[in-house]
Amino acid sequence: MDKYRIIEVKQSIFENNDREAEELRSELKAQGTYLINLMASPGAGKTSVLKRILDALKDEMKIGVMEADIDSDVDAAAVAEKGVKVIQLHTGGMCHLDAAMTKQGLENLGTEGLDLVFLENIGNLVCPAEFDTGATRNMMILSVPEGHDKPLKYPLMFTVCDVLLINKIDVLPYFDFDMEKVREYALMRNPNMKIFPVSAKSGEGMDAFLAWLRDEVKPAEK
Amino acid sequence: MDKYRIIEVKQSIFENNDREAEELRSELKAQGTYLINLMASPGAGKTSVLKRILDALKDEMKIGVMEADIDSDVDAAAVAEKGVKVIQLHTGGMCHLDAAMTKQGLENLGTEGLDLVFLENIGNLVCPAEFDTGATRNMMILSVPEGHDKPLKYPLMFTVCDVLLINKIDVLPYFDFDMEKVREYALMRNPNMKIFPVSAKSGEGMDAFLAWLRDEVKPAEK
Repeated sequence: MDKYRIIEVKQSIFENNDREAEELRSELKAQGTYLINLMASPGAGKTSVLKRILDALKDEMKIGVMEADIDSDVDAAAVAEKGVKVIQLHTGGMCHLDAAMTKQGLENLGTEGLDLVFLENIGNLVCPAEFDTGATRNMMILSVPEGHDKPLKYPLMFTVCDVLLINKIDVLPYFDFDMEKVREYALMRNPNMKIFPVSAKSGEGMDAFLAWLRDEVKPAEK
Repeated sequence: MDKYRIIEVKQSIFENNDREAEELRSELKAQGTYLINLMASPGAGKTSVLKRILDALKDEMKIGVMEADIDSDVDAAAVAEKGVKVIQLHTGGMCHLDAAMTKQGLENLGTEGLDLVFLENIGNLVCPAEFDTGATRNMMILSVPEGHDKPLKYPLMFTVCDVLLINKIDVLPYFDFDMEKVREYALMRNPNMKIFPVSAKSGEGMDAFLAWLRDEVKPAEK
């Protein structure tokens, strides 16, 4: 029961979220901690992808996880089993995290010596896209069953994300999902987006994403 | 191109959403129009389920549809093909609809003579649950790929919904989805919830839901 703590985070009383986010990003850069803000629809596979990443990287870098949820702590419990530092953030009904809430989370997690921290945001394609959390990168997961038209319907989310994992490719045969169309639509929103088709269930495609992530967190010496 | 209009709806400047919602619900009852507020995650199948319902019921009752979206009109275009009265509501980035926005939509749709109106809300399990739209009933779709733990993670959505369709049962063999657990968790949130497992793709299970809906909209003479 003491594998992780639960923190009730509160929205900033200051309206200047963008400034707070920039400050937080600079602080993280200065201390050498890479923060990923992970966003997706409910059930797209955020926690499953995260568990795959932890299995692959936990022995080569120091990783921390902040699981945000409205009320439950099922995700923190799942991640804690991987043996990494994890806390559960409760937003008390709030549909997103802002920079101040993220900062409260990081202070409670303790980032000293951490190379990489994941913030698993609330499952929502609308509100989290509107608030810069101060993360180094925004990462998004779209799952095959959701359909390839999502970049048309949730434009801001796809615009603000640097990397997109297309998850559940193991079930591609059972859905009308057009991989070429989703690439086209996503790149229309953000031409610089990195896109990796993966299956958190089978592990397929994860190596290409992990290679990108390793180089982001600890760039190879030139 | 003129099969449906696009309406830019704006949030009420009045804070008293609950009062406005009650007034709207009374007006709709007085004129004999049954309004369903349809909510779900992105990609759960709101539009696909709606098309199945329209195919089944459009010749026995007068139906109108309001498709809410942040920006696109792909859903209105899909529904307009069914030959029912449809308008597209654009929320301009807003993550939910409130009673005032719903009322603006209904005025633009024109409810004169309509037995049943669907409001397809923004794909989001958080914010739409917090705003009473004035609908006669709240209806939710959870899809099998999202997982059976969703009532634990989005408690308010399951609490406020009167009827739950569990969609995409055609892909049950390919996912770890426990139908008994989802029933248990959903009924924990709302013991009176009606639950119907369906597949909008194959049509399986739709008859039981349609029988319930027919009796709701036009109750059989006792």
